[in-house]
Amino acid sequence: MRAKQFFISTMKEAPADAEIVSQKLMLRAGMIKKLAAGIYDIMPMGLRSLRKIESIIREEMDRAGAIELLMPIVQPAELWQETGRWQKYGDELLRIKDRHDRDFVLQPTSEEVVTDIARQEIKSWRQLPVNFYQIQTKFRDERRPRFGVMRGRDFIMKDAYSFDRNAEDAGKSYDKMFEAYCRIFDRLGLMYRAVRADSGSIGGSRSQEFQVIADTGEDLIVFCPDSDYAANIELAEAPCLIEKREEPKEAMEKVPTPGKDKCELVVELLGKPLTDSVKSIVLAVEQYDEKGNPLPAKIVLLLLRGDHSLNEVKAGKLDALKPGFRFATDSEIMNTFGSKPGYLGPVGIPKNVTIVADTTVANMSDFIVGANEEGYHIRGVNWGRDLREPDVVADIRNVVVGDASPDGKGTLKMQRGIEVGHVFFLGDKYSSAMKATYLDENGKPQVLQMGCYGIGVSRLLGAAIEQGHDDKGIIWPDSIAPFTVVICAVGYDKSEEVQKVSNELYGRLKEAGIDVILDDRGLRPGVMFAEWELIGVPHRVTIGDRGLKNGEVEYTHRRDLKNETVPVADIADKLIGLINNR
Amino acid sequence: MRAKQFFISTMKEAPADAEIVSQKLMLRAGMIKKLAAGIYDIMPMGLRSLRKIESIIREEMDRAGAIELLMPIVQPAELWQETGRWQKYGDELLRIKDRHDRDFVLQPTSEEVVTDIARQEIKSWRQLPVNFYQIQTKFRDERRPRFGVMRGRDFIMKDAYSFDRNAEDAGKSYDKMFEAYCRIFDRLGLMYRAVRADSGSIGGSRSQEFQVIADTGEDLIVFCPDSDYAANIELAEAPCLIEKREEPKEAMEKVPTPGKDKCELVVELLGKPLTDSVKSIVLAVEQYDEKGNPLPAKIVLLLLRGDHSLNEVKAGKLDALKPGFRFATDSEIMNTFGSKPGYLGPVGIPKNVTIVADTTVANMSDFIVGANEEGYHIRGVNWGRDLREPDVVADIRNVVVGDASPDGKGTLKMQRGIEVGHVFFLGDKYSSAMKATYLDENGKPQVLQMGCYGIGVSRLLGAAIEQGHDDKGIIWPDSIAPFTVVICAVGYDKSEEVQKVSNELYGRLKEAGIDVILDDRGLRPGVMFAEWELIGVPHRVTIGDRGLKNGEVEYTHRRDLKNETVPVADIADKLIGLINNR
Repeated sequence: MRAKQFFISTMKEAPADAEIVSQKLMLRAGMIKKLAAGIYDIMPMGLRSLRKIESIIREEMDRAGAIELLMPIVQPAELWQETGRWQKYGDELLRIKDRHDRDFVLQPTSEEVVTDIARQEIKSWRQLPVNFYQIQTKFRDERRPRFGVMRGRDFIMKDAYSFDRNAEDAGKSYDKMFEAYCRIFDRLGLMYRAVRADSGSIGGSRSQEFQVIADTGEDLIVFCPDSDYAANIELAEAPCLIEKREEPKEAMEKVPTPGKDKCELVVELLGKPLTDSVKSIVLAVEQYDEKGNPLPAKIVLLLLRGDHSLNEVKAGKLDALKPGFRFATDSEIMNTFGSKPGYLGPVGIPKNVTIVADTTVANMSDFIVGANEEGYHIRGVNWGRDLREPDVVADIRNVVVGDASPDGKGTLKMQRGIEVGHVFFLGDKYSSAMKATYLDENGKPQVLQMGCYGIGVSRLLGAAIEQGHDDKGIIWPDSIAPFTVVICAVGYDKSEEVQKVSNELYGRLKEAGIDVILDDRGLRPGVMFAEWELIGVPHRVTIGDRGLKNGEVEYTHRRDLKNETVPVADIADKLIGLINNR
Repeated sequence: MRAKQFFISTMKEAPADAEIVSQKLMLRAGMIKKLAAGIYDIMPMGLRSLRKIESIIREEMDRAGAIELLMPIVQPAELWQETGRWQKYGDELLRIKDRHDRDFVLQPTSEEVVTDIARQEIKSWRQLPVNFYQIQTKFRDERRPRFGVMRGRDFIMKDAYSFDRNAEDAGKSYDKMFEAYCRIFDRLGLMYRAVRADSGSIGGSRSQEFQVIADTGEDLIVFCPDSDYAANIELAEAPCLIEKREEPKEAMEKVPTPGKDKCELVVELLGKPLTDSVKSIVLAVEQYDEKGNPLPAKIVLLLLRGDHSLNEVKAGKLDALKPGFRFATDSEIMNTFGSKPGYLGPVGIPKNVTIVADTTVANMSDFIVGANEEGYHIRGVNWGRDLREPDVVADIRNVVVGDASPDGKGTLKMQRGIEVGHVFFLGDKYSSAMKATYLDENGKPQVLQMGCYGIGVSRLLGAAIEQGHDDKGIIWPDSIAPFTVVICAVGYDKSEEVQKVSNELYGRLKEAGIDVILDDRGLRPGVMFAEWELIGVPHRVTIGDRGLKNGEVEYTHRRDLKNETVPVADIADKLIGLINNR
């Protein structure tokens, strides 16, 4: 490509509403352009990188035996009603009506449609296993779209769906996809981690996320440096930190703690460690009578050690909090506990309040809780003696650095990540609901076992930038840079020698199959360098009359921006070697 | 590809609701699958052909200097309101609301969004010309979607948009696209014709359609075998067949024509040629008072020679019928003419009825019309003498075979076609409405001149099949067949020799870059042949023990299905020669 024939449009400053670095850099580098909240034009520069990601994904999916098809973006509501997701999926599912007032959705994902295909097309065990995938626009009507392509409404996803005869085979399909994903992210040249994850609204019993490591990531990843263990904090199992509940040593005592509405403040006042305190979190579960009329919400009190934090995903899995919880309102709290938040506790509360204690809290003795009276706490509290035993004991906290790894092989560390891929073992969640069966060797109908596998294609652009950038702009890995090499021809419009050498190098690299752009615009070197540093092309060759006098050009890698003088005769081979042997 | 690793799913019978041959064959060959009315899954077999079409289009667009980007499917209403298409575009534009109740559309085309990009990105004449294109899903909410991918709601279109400094340069961009389109359709291996066309709702002043020739096409193409002239019948200029109006020879006479409510029946009764009769077509244009309340519709009487038919597109361009017309209701006709249809005519009608005469009718003498009385016509009618001169004389008829070509170089013929591409010169229709300007050499803002260029990518699949099929199935051109070669390995599951020869040939062809599928499923030959004939792979090699005994395999081309015996040693070279040298 020659720059004059391409569309390059960079900006000095990102628009004011851009929040994170990848969004700012993609806008400034002319890779995307905002059309509406969470909806972006993919500009020519961005599309080049996107296509490279798609190609790598496609090659590895094909290699793993998956078969590409294309499912429509506009999908009939009937299929979504069959699985119940028409009702259950929140407002992110954009429901629309056509001219005949029929209901449709814009696909946020395609389990229903692919299962509809499978139940019609897969008749016999002889056709199994099969794995269908597509690379296709999705739409999720995010409440607060932001961060550019990282949390857009309109985005490109690769979604794959495997169908198998039984759970064992489905596990093999899952493993195959897991391996394909590792190859994909390896080839993309990104630092990533595969972590255990929660299945969320997709459902299913086994799932792993692929997280691109970046300090700015939304997700917290927990890992054990001494073993393979890695999990999203949502899922990471927290150990019980007290093996056995000790006998009470203190008497229960109500103490004044005016203005001390946080554990940290209370223990400071009392001269106790934070690990002696227990925090109370009040949740509510809506309830209805048999006619569907709302009743007062069920109140659930969650107890966590003062230095721990609530893990809402774990809590959401408790029967006591099903089908879904919210935080209790101030008036619900006042009505139930007789005090405002900050001074709440489990002592002397009504019997209809369910008490859920974290595993560690359940083994604590002589602990400190709120007195359910503003300005007061109680110390020396003990289970059984001072209050009834908890109704539920469960792991409801987030792990912290230093917790023991669940595999017993060390202690946990954390880093931040950006979720770019997710593999799920679905089992028969969709196939049962939609009656997708095949005939086995005995001619008997059996329910298909499924897995589903997603990669956020457009999101990967953002993740790669969050991982690779400096104050000058983007630093792409070779694999997904919009161009692998830029030839900065200084004075191209004036110097025949520069033209000749630049064109020759350009021809050599193209012949070698290298994706090169020749900047033939005749810009001043400073402007030209700044633009390509912003865009983040990894390899730069600068060709100008000054160097050519000595038969030399300059090579610069985007990562360190160190200039290296290279004889004209060697530059093509050097680049070919650098790029093809990485 | 090996058949066992691919997804092949054919049907003996097409579903009952499939109407046309391409739709039936695509469903039967497992290329598409219906999800909802006008909404189809593109199955793996179909996607292969689709991708080949896309590649050819992409290569030629790139070669012509167009630059690819990607615009969102969900687009904000505001832009469509700026150009007025939010209001004017009919129900085919699917208008939707997001969770915040904001208005959006699903893109049926992207003039608004690309013009929005241009007005932000194109600042200077130095950036021009530029041509942006995308290959992307579109949605048009057709009232009666049918014919599979030929008139779907969800479909894939390549749309390109050129921006230029002035009309002259825009004309050059248009010509470049026209040439690129010719190369594309040439490479696709389709018989097609570029014809002059009406601009329709897109607007603009110059437009041509690319029509794939097929007897089943919806469009009528008019062409002159002795010249370049070709046009959609909607646009084709009809000559006036009577150079000069002759003096009246007959007296006007009312004659009884009971039950003769068609020109053909009247002239038969009167022993006159059909060319002596004039048919009356009554149209209505809605009218409103200044407050927007409906008034009685304006009535317009169109007069055509008995053997001619109305061209509604031409009629729609007349001032007398703007802003839009409909056929008059029976009661409007009765109120105005005092007679029911079949006996209508221009003699003695109220002055407020606008009379529009086709150019030929305007020069007729002694003609026959309805008497505005059931069961009566009038003969010997003459302009001026028996009725007022027409208010409007215009070409409002369809051309007929044998009409003189507008370029004066011969007479017209007709054939049917399927519109697969359309190039439009838009001028400033969108750029003026959206204030898309650039600064010229003098620093003065100038409105961008635009063109737009579409290809129906998924529709091309259907069009190619309408053009290429027989009673056994599809006959693809090499360029877009899902596979170019199929190796039918008879007894692959049993014969080592068949396996060896098949695998060797498969390897050789793959090495030569030929898209080959090896049918390794061990099917019976009849079943296997029937399936590949349905799917329409152009080149077939049959390898079986019987032939191998003599060192021979069989070659068959899909078009004639004649079997040719070829020595094993020669088959690879023969195929490579056939495919690469076409």
